[in-house]
Parts: sequence; structure tokens; C-alpha cells
Amino acid sequence: MKQENTAPTMKDVAREAGVALGTVSKVVNGLPVGEPYRIKVEEAIKKLNYQVNSYAQGLKSSKTYTIAFLIPNTRDPYFANLTYHINLSLLRRKYKMLLCSTDSDSVQEQEYITMVQQNKVDGIIGLIYNPNVIIEENTPFVAIDRSMGPNIPCVASDNFAGGQLAAEKLADLGCKKVAFLRIGSSLDNEPNKRKAGFENGCLARGLDYEMKILNDGDSFEEFERFLIRHMHDGKLTFDGIFCVTDSLAYSVIHMLKNLNLKVPEDVQIIGFDGVRHFGEKDYTCSTIVQPVPEIAEMCVDLLLQENMPTKPPLVCLPVSYEYGGTTLEK
Amino acid sequence: MKQENTAPTMKDVAREAGVALGTVSKVVNGLPVGEPYRIKVEEAIKKLNYQVNSYAQGLKSSKTYTIAFLIPNTRDPYFANLTYHINLSLLRRKYKMLLCSTDSDSVQEQEYITMVQQNKVDGIIGLIYNPNVIIEENTPFVAIDRSMGPNIPCVASDNFAGGQLAAEKLADLGCKKVAFLRIGSSLDNEPNKRKAGFENGCLARGLDYEMKILNDGDSFEEFERFLIRHMHDGKLTFDGIFCVTDSLAYSVIHMLKNLNLKVPEDVQIIGFDGVRHFGEKDYTCSTIVQPVPEIAEMCVDLLLQENMPTKPPLVCLPVSYEYGGTTLEK
Repeated sequence: MKQENTAPTMKDVAREAGVALGTVSKVVNGLPVGEPYRIKVEEAIKKLNYQVNSYAQGLKSSKTYTIAFLIPNTRDPYFANLTYHINLSLLRRKYKMLLCSTDSDSVQEQEYITMVQQNKVDGIIGLIYNPNVIIEENTPFVAIDRSMGPNIPCVASDNFAGGQLAAEKLADLGCKKVAFLRIGSSLDNEPNKRKAGFENGCLARGLDYEMKILNDGDSFEEFERFLIRHMHDGKLTFDGIFCVTDSLAYSVIHMLKNLNLKVPEDVQIIGFDGVRHFGEKDYTCSTIVQPVPEIAEMCVDLLLQENMPTKPPLVCLPVSYEYGGTTLEK
Repeated sequence: MKQENTAPTMKDVAREAGVALGTVSKVVNGLPVGEPYRIKVEEAIKKLNYQVNSYAQGLKSSKTYTIAFLIPNTRDPYFANLTYHINLSLLRRKYKMLLCSTDSDSVQEQEYITMVQQNKVDGIIGLIYNPNVIIEENTPFVAIDRSMGPNIPCVASDNFAGGQLAAEKLADLGCKKVAFLRIGSSLDNEPNKRKAGFENGCLARGLDYEMKILNDGDSFEEFERFLIRHMHDGKLTFDGIFCVTDSLAYSVIHMLKNLNLKVPEDVQIIGFDGVRHFGEKDYTCSTIVQPVPEIAEMCVDLLLQENMPTKPPLVCLPVSYEYGGTTLEK
């Protein structure tokens, strides 16, 4: 018995075009189909004024062409830049971005991860520093900066090479005794490799070095006490400092100013990230630049690549050094 | 004839609960319904293990609980902060944000506006500087900073009051002759009122003033030439400058440094926006602070408010002044 229905259905289109229902479905969902079939279907769609229902389409094809992006916040300039480039990379592929910046609220992060199981989004790109978040195996997920489990690719800068480059640069710039300052998550993550890279670079170049490492939540004053402990007769025993982020470098430069020390004359500073003033002007300090556009492209490529039998567990992208006023370039 | 169906439908739930289908629909879609009915429906849903299908739900209720947010980019720190707070305001109401930052690509912006007509999103919050973008009447849309047409509310800072406050502050800080520097879109927009407010404040305080106004795309060197034209014997004839944004203030401070002028000793600078270093540290200059969390809340409230017969065409929120190192506070 034929159903009463005013609006034409996909079946009506198939009948009108003289093709199988599956062929109509493929055309509607943008899947490959022989050119003569596509033309027939498109003509039938036009003739019947068939309207693709996006919800029904989502239901049928399980494709929403929407990706969720999880990031602690968009205020931090490095995160803001990452959000910008991932959005551009998605738009270029006609994908949309659902933005979830929750200040690391694990309940809300988990809720977004569940959405992919409910077919509300096709996949997730996430920079998550939350030990409680659980990602089921085979969830279409690409992580940034922190490995989230087996079968989930992680994309990051080559942080080890970046740390090494910072040590080499300080050596090239004439430093004899340097310090490494770090504050951040104690969870296993890629940026932690900056430390090992820096040590490696110092050892290779015979650079004398000390380290001061704080965890998230520790007081910044610890850094000030560390610096004061290394001052003699108003002079710092270090002539170079590598800070784990540009944001930390900014704070350390203020501390040094308060201690009547001049940057870069008394002590040279290199940061990490490549943050620019107002997002696009000069660098906030001499810095190891993360390749943000390339990180964004890689995340999106890996997520949308369907026929990849084994996804790479960790992709490290090359960093570069840029002068930003806090070093003594020749 | 009863349909064969393994999964329970909304009808099955209604039958089980002994209520009308519309009551089940209301409960499922989170609409108000008498408490005893809600309990009956929820029990039936549990008993039958009825799964709300989100696509079908979107189809029935026309509610997606998703809002599109259009912003030129997320790299600019003011935009990054706005994105952050609108995201938080939406999350608090269990809404999701589809982020569209297209570097002002009018075709892509228009595409997102069309989504609301296709029921893919419930509404749009947009900061758009594109004269070509068309928004149909009765589209659920809240604009930021620029009025987009009748029946579309616009939310902005009280830019006029902000300009006035900048003039008053410079007068309070001892300035005698000041300048106003502006670069930006020539389209009608709320931030343009900063100029009129500043003039008004200067006149009220008997402050001598000059203006230099450039349009988007004009060369920044025009500002440098303007400053040089107002120098005599190595001194600037202005002792105060109000810059239309903190970003412009940053560039002007660099120009002044190159001209061997000291900020704030030789000339005091006030910017506009309230941008902080690294999104959360100190202000980049003395500044008129936009109330970003309040702007975000107002946008979301206006968009989601359904039973408002007349939406306010323009909402202006109060600004404040904050010291940021480029003025001579007593």
C-alpha cells in the first residue's frame, strides 16, 4: 500500500531517475557514483523539488560534517591561534567546528566526547589536560600535545628538538651558564620533552645549566626566590634563561626588571610557542615557534582520513627559532 | 495496522504512560509539563528503554541547542576573549557553539546564516563587518558592535561613554592638548561612537584636541607622519593620546619610542578594549575596558529569550577605566 505523503521521498527520486535507492543515497550524501547516474539523480531531484532533510540525512549517513574541538580556553594566545587555524583547516574542507572550551571541566569535556558516539559530531580534536577524561577505543579522536591512549593519534611540535634548539641558540649567542624554568602540568605530555631536549643541547655544547621546575598551582614566587639565590653582588650567575613558554618568559622578564637586571644585556631569554603581540604583530620574546598552521592541518587530515589502516600514534612537526628582542643577536 | 518496529517509539511511551503524545514530546524536549505527567513519562521511558534520537528530535522540535558564533578571527585578543566568554555563557545554559571565524569571508558567513533557516542551529550571535551579508527579518540573530537591521538586537559597550571617559581621564591626569587616533572600518558601527564621545569630553573639559582618522587598509605610516608634523624641537605638541583600540595604542607606543619620546613621561596614552598580556596578565596599556563577560551574557540572553514581544534594538553596557602603565597616575 503506497503511503500518503505530500513531500517527495528518496524512493520517489529513485523511481523518477530509474536508478536504485542506494544510488540516490550516494548522490545525496556526496559519495562517489558514476557521472551518468549522478546527472539522472540530480535531474530527478530538481524535477520533484526533493528537499534533502539534514536531520534525516544525519540519521542515514551518520555524517554531520561537524567536528568538536576541545581546548581549555580561547583566551590564552597560543590556544586562540590554534583555534583559529583548526577552524580554517576545517572550513577549507567544508566541515564545521563545534567549539568546547570549558576551562578543563572534565564533566563537560566528557559530554562532548560522548557526542561522537551519538553521531552528533563526526569526530573530535582535543587538547585535554584532564586525567579523568575517558576516550573509548575507536573513537574518531586526534589529540594535541598529550597522548590519550592507543589508536588515538597525537599531534605536537617536535618539543625535544625545540628544547635542544633553545640550548644551541643560547650557546651560539655567547651564553656560558644557563637556566631552564618550567611550570605546567605534571601529567605525561609532549611539551615536557622540552626539558630533555634542552639538557641534551646543553650537554652537547658544554653549557653549564640549572633547572627549576614547578607544577601547576605552585607559586610563581618560587622562581623569584630561585633567581635571587643565584645573584651575587647584584649580578645573576646565569647569562641565559630558557622558559618553557612565552607566557612564563613574560613573567620572568618582569621579575628580572624588578631585580634591576636588564634583558637581554645582563641575561638573554628564550621562550617557547611563538606568541605574537595582538595575535599578529611582533613576537613577545625571542622564541621557539610552534608550527600552528601545520599542526592544525595535520590534526584535521588525520581525523578525516578514513582509509588509514594504522594511524600514526605520534606526529611531531618541526619548530623554528625567531628573534623577539630578548636575545643579543649579532 | 501496527507497524513492525524493534525500537520503541514516542507513541509507545505515550501508551505506556497513559498520556497524550504531545505530553511525551514536551518532556523529551524539555518543555514545561505538570510534575505528575513528567514522572509518568520518565518512568515509561525508563521501562521501555526509549532512546531519544537527536536527529529525529531536531526534526520534531526544531531545537538543536546549538548556536552559531560568527567572528572575523580568534587570534585578535579581544575577539579571543569574546569567544571565550560567549562559549562559557552558552555552556552554562547547556547550549553548544558552532564557531565560524572566516577572516570576514562573506560567502561563508552567509552560509552560516542560512543554517538557521534550515534548522541546523537555533540562532546566531555575530560580529560581522561585511556589508554584503544579508540577514532576513525574523532570523534569530544578535549582533555585536554593528546593527544588522530592524528586529535584530545589537549589543555593544557604551562606546560614547568610553570615549568621553578617555577624555576626562586625560584631563584629570593633567593633559592640556590631546590627540585622537583611529583606524578601522568606515561602515556604520558602534565603536565609531568613541570619537564623538571623546570630542564631547574634550569640549566639556576645555581640552584642546586634534584627530587623525584612517580607514581600514590605509597605511600606518600616516600616523607617524601625523606625529612628526606635531613635533617641535624634539617635543610633541600633544601630552595625551587616545587610541581607538589597545592594538593601535601598542603600535603608536612603538612609533613614539622610535621618535625618542617617552610614554608616559612625554605623552600619556589611553587605549580601548581592555586587552591583557597573554589573555590574563596585566593590561597592555592604560585602557577603557569593555565588559566582555557582560556582553557575552547579554547576547545569549537576548538570543534565547523567546517570549519577548519587542527585542531592544541596541543595548549599551558600561565601560570602565584601568591603569596599564602608559599614564601618569597620581
